[in-house]
Amino acid sequence: MSHTERAVVLLSGGVDSTVTAAIAKNRGYELFLLHFDYGQRTELKERSCFAAIGKVLKAKRQEITNVRFLEWIGHSSLTDPRIPVPTEDPSGIPNTYVPFRNGIFLSLAAAWAETVAARAIFIGAMQEDGPGYPDTTEEFIASMEKAINLGRRPESECRIIAPIIHNTKAEVVKIGAELLVPFGMTWSCYSSEGVACGICQSCVMRRRAFEKAGIKDPIRYKV
Amino acid sequence: MSHTERAVVLLSGGVDSTVTAAIAKNRGYELFLLHFDYGQRTELKERSCFAAIGKVLKAKRQEITNVRFLEWIGHSSLTDPRIPVPTEDPSGIPNTYVPFRNGIFLSLAAAWAETVAARAIFIGAMQEDGPGYPDTTEEFIASMEKAINLGRRPESECRIIAPIIHNTKAEVVKIGAELLVPFGMTWSCYSSEGVACGICQSCVMRRRAFEKAGIKDPIRYKV
Repeated sequence: MSHTERAVVLLSGGVDSTVTAAIAKNRGYELFLLHFDYGQRTELKERSCFAAIGKVLKAKRQEITNVRFLEWIGHSSLTDPRIPVPTEDPSGIPNTYVPFRNGIFLSLAAAWAETVAARAIFIGAMQEDGPGYPDTTEEFIASMEKAINLGRRPESECRIIAPIIHNTKAEVVKIGAELLVPFGMTWSCYSSEGVACGICQSCVMRRRAFEKAGIKDPIRYKV
Repeated sequence: MSHTERAVVLLSGGVDSTVTAAIAKNRGYELFLLHFDYGQRTELKERSCFAAIGKVLKAKRQEITNVRFLEWIGHSSLTDPRIPVPTEDPSGIPNTYVPFRNGIFLSLAAAWAETVAARAIFIGAMQEDGPGYPDTTEEFIASMEKAINLGRRPESECRIIAPIIHNTKAEVVKIGAELLVPFGMTWSCYSSEGVACGICQSCVMRRRAFEKAGIKDPIRYKV
């Protein structure tokens, strides 16, 4: 692969997407980082993490786009303040699921990728050890890749790369540590923007992963 | 099919999408109409057509969403005023192609469809007699349908219906006339918002279709 090949990377500012961006960087891609404001509870915090991480990773470009449509349609505890964020691992698809979020994000990334001639789109989806959303499976990613390659100019052919899809979150933390990911700049908490709550599903999964990996999590928790 | 089954319909306000919405209505669906503001040249006009058509078709709900990201990335004569709109049928993919537009629109429609329990998404794509965009083929639509059904809650299963995909535009005009579509409320011109230019690719295709169908086009043209 040429070292100037370009990749669009979906970057929320959490551990998984940040490690994914570091992997893309490590593989020699020029980074085009894309963040989404979809009315999630912690967007202001995520936005500052996104800015800081992009600088550390020396992104070629980084952009934020508005998908407030997802806030408007609601139906998720991440975008509707009336639905409480779960504080444990629920069974089945948790209420933090946002309708077809990754489908929308990958579609927008595909449009940007076409205009900047990026040959890859990176996404930090995790199938087995993630929160259990339907839009994080390998089969889903493959189907979106097919749709994207059918629905754009033929010369724009690109791959969707989900490099941590079959890893555990503890493995992701280890890979990140090896790549010197600035974990102190990442944000996982679903509920708070100041100090992480420590008890939401996302905080619980993050803390467990750092513990299993034997790596100190540099961020602070309320509880 | 139950007569209260719901469908999300992508409705730009042009002939194809309006006839598609009328077909969905005629099949007994309750209409959830979705329009996109993506910075296209004629959005203000399209928006008023969308409002008027929704009333005539007695839509259950009609919403407009912001996809100005497509304007920001540009690369299309519809969203970048520096690129001239072609005035004839170009060969290959014309510069009015907007990167992965239908992929983005279908993804957003899929999210809304999930929250309102719609079992169908209607799109007025035309494969053979359309402007030749890659995101209007049956194969592309089928791949998006697969991605949407893999990437959402399993109980949200839905179909993407493209009822005019293999019709000629003249046939679409005839179908619309039978369904009493208010063609005077539709807008096709790529360039102007007051009186249709009459010479852009979209005006040319529209006029030719009405002529072939032997039906009078109620809108006025400059040239």
